[in-house]
Amino acid sequence: MTRTDLDYAHELDRQDDLARFRDEFVIDDPDLIYLDGNSLGRLPKRTVARMREVIEKEWGERLIRGWGEGWFTAPQRIGAKIAQLIGAQADEVIVADSTSVNLFKLYIAALQARPGRPKVVTDDLNFPSDVYVLQGAVKLAGPVYGLEMVRSADGLTISNDALQATIDKDTALVTLTHTAFKSGYVYDMGAVTEMAHRAGALVLWDLCHSVGAMPLDLNAANVDMAVGCTYKYLNGGPGAPAFLYIRRDLQEQLLNPIWGWFGQRGQFDMKLDYEPAPGLQRFLAGTPTMLSLAAVEPAVDLLLEAGVERLRAKSVKQTEYLIALWEALLAPLGVTLNSPRDPARRGAHVSLGHPEGLRIDLALIEDMRVIPDFRYPDNIRLGLAPLYTSFVEIHEAIMRLRRVIVERLYDKYPTERPEVT
Amino acid sequence: MTRTDLDYAHELDRQDDLARFRDEFVIDDPDLIYLDGNSLGRLPKRTVARMREVIEKEWGERLIRGWGEGWFTAPQRIGAKIAQLIGAQADEVIVADSTSVNLFKLYIAALQARPGRPKVVTDDLNFPSDVYVLQGAVKLAGPVYGLEMVRSADGLTISNDALQATIDKDTALVTLTHTAFKSGYVYDMGAVTEMAHRAGALVLWDLCHSVGAMPLDLNAANVDMAVGCTYKYLNGGPGAPAFLYIRRDLQEQLLNPIWGWFGQRGQFDMKLDYEPAPGLQRFLAGTPTMLSLAAVEPAVDLLLEAGVERLRAKSVKQTEYLIALWEALLAPLGVTLNSPRDPARRGAHVSLGHPEGLRIDLALIEDMRVIPDFRYPDNIRLGLAPLYTSFVEIHEAIMRLRRVIVERLYDKYPTERPEVT
Repeated sequence: MTRTDLDYAHELDRQDDLARFRDEFVIDDPDLIYLDGNSLGRLPKRTVARMREVIEKEWGERLIRGWGEGWFTAPQRIGAKIAQLIGAQADEVIVADSTSVNLFKLYIAALQARPGRPKVVTDDLNFPSDVYVLQGAVKLAGPVYGLEMVRSADGLTISNDALQATIDKDTALVTLTHTAFKSGYVYDMGAVTEMAHRAGALVLWDLCHSVGAMPLDLNAANVDMAVGCTYKYLNGGPGAPAFLYIRRDLQEQLLNPIWGWFGQRGQFDMKLDYEPAPGLQRFLAGTPTMLSLAAVEPAVDLLLEAGVERLRAKSVKQTEYLIALWEALLAPLGVTLNSPRDPARRGAHVSLGHPEGLRIDLALIEDMRVIPDFRYPDNIRLGLAPLYTSFVEIHEAIMRLRRVIVERLYDKYPTERPEVT
Repeated sequence: MTRTDLDYAHELDRQDDLARFRDEFVIDDPDLIYLDGNSLGRLPKRTVARMREVIEKEWGERLIRGWGEGWFTAPQRIGAKIAQLIGAQADEVIVADSTSVNLFKLYIAALQARPGRPKVVTDDLNFPSDVYVLQGAVKLAGPVYGLEMVRSADGLTISNDALQATIDKDTALVTLTHTAFKSGYVYDMGAVTEMAHRAGALVLWDLCHSVGAMPLDLNAANVDMAVGCTYKYLNGGPGAPAFLYIRRDLQEQLLNPIWGWFGQRGQFDMKLDYEPAPGLQRFLAGTPTMLSLAAVEPAVDLLLEAGVERLRAKSVKQTEYLIALWEALLAPLGVTLNSPRDPARRGAHVSLGHPEGLRIDLALIEDMRVIPDFRYPDNIRLGLAPLYTSFVEIHEAIMRLRRVIVERLYDKYPTERPEVT
């Protein structure tokens, strides 16, 4: 039985060899427990300095010359750094647009690369935006195409057998989110990719809730395509541009449907016929949002310094610790664990279920100075960012959550989420 | 005959009722003459302050709460401000993605809204990225679709007759750039739009080189769709997100092909079936790049304070002055005017032609502390941003340009543009 006392949490922090990284972040209010780094990561201090430089020096003083002095190559340069986090080659990752736009490009490219195969497979654990974009891409690609959605039995996990039963010789593409956004369930990337390849289908993984929280090895798993965002565990800032990965030998076979000038061979020749640039550059479209893009780089550097193996080791320790506290302190109050018990199949967030989840979430934010996230219908989602979340914070958050339930502090809150205005 | 002496330039600056706005910009080096504000506008001082706020306070301290405190509504809020610059209603403009991605969305939407009409009309003065995206959209839409490109006789202008001869009952869409990127030729928006509407076609205007430099009245011209960038005369920063306009009564008839979650009705219900949000919101896709987006707002505020009518009056005075200096001082040296003489048909940049244009451009930048732009084959493009370009700068730039030609200071430069690396 895990110790539930505060002294033990302090002891775990003292043993933590990544503890010093917390000081790399702007933390103005140490009493606020931020457990939503899986929605928007904290601000690294070095990003503050970098943004002053890019705004005041590069834009303000160098003006248009900034493009020749590091801006043009930023999508590739930062992509090459992200490649190190996901087990890819430097020229297999590029930063561009949003996750949704990148998904669109790759979905269309994949369908065009597998003509005669009308079926696309995903599942109901996938992130809604991925599913919407996929529905639109399938519709745009033509009436022969159809989307098959594998259904989860428990809402938390999908078995490999269920996927296997749906993937066949008609399947052009299998597209899944590697760490499920609600439950934190982590797929076996190698096994599922191999399953799709055996049927001749392409595979696209959404890495949004995985990248920066665990080691990934896309090359070892022979993954075809992937996308990911940079504003969660990568701490790249609100709406920071996303990345996309295409395995090197596939790059020349795939065509971006959005033929923008940054994907054109000889961009400044200004010829009037589109000719795709070699390699991954063809998957750029318009001019990169340089300010948002610049914020990604120092944040990724920080992850590389910490090392994904060490981050994963701490992350597993933290989610195990949180689950032990849940078991001792919250399970007796009717709180369920909506994440996998097996750490090998679990990401860096833990979802706890309670019929009053939404109101508990509001009480935590308003009265308890804890910021979790909420996902319908009843998930209180606790994101533990190993780069800056401390064991004491985890302990304190569970204590405050317990108090909200025991003292029914949620009673005064509405049962419907207020409209965002 | 216009006076070519420096005193006269000073006199024009003294008469300029917008002169005080120059002080709103970061200008660290007054000897550097920046005539490329039509590629990347200068940095407003208030943007420096706003960016510190959004990074250090809103992201750093408010964290995920920032979305509910102004970020979610920024695409609409900033769009409504841009609407005031282009003669549109507040709910007819939204800021999202890049110009290229917005063009893609609108091209596909337009073709789907005019079934049975296989033809799309553009011309060879259009910006290359617009043409590439259009070629891709036409190809993706299906084999029945074809692109017809009206050719310019002189490379500078397109006659309404030439457009009229091409637009017919098979035409789904006419798409043009309102101010041509090379010559600065300005189309008659009302006449061309009416021409297309008579044939039953939709019209899409690219406003990149117009917005912020001249009054536009999209509602009066009954324009269907438009896009524009915010990093030129709007001074929104490198690669700042673009805007798109759809006339109100068309909004519910058009469907964004990229079905991202920011365009979903009830985004946080997280349902797994796409249902487009009402109005223009459906043309959002992924999460907005908040840092880049935030930089657009103070810059647009500055334009609104100056007023587009006053900006246009100054802009015409400045391009007329530059052309008078060209006529007196450069034409005798073999420099041609590659922009329209009639100010009503000319934007805020003036292109001068010379067989050694590329080398002259390099000499201006490297030796003369003048930053123009160059566009193949021989255009030295001089962008005059009425918000901060002074008459003395115009005078001095022409003097330095004259010196480069007279003293053949360009001789030492290569005849090929160096690769951007």
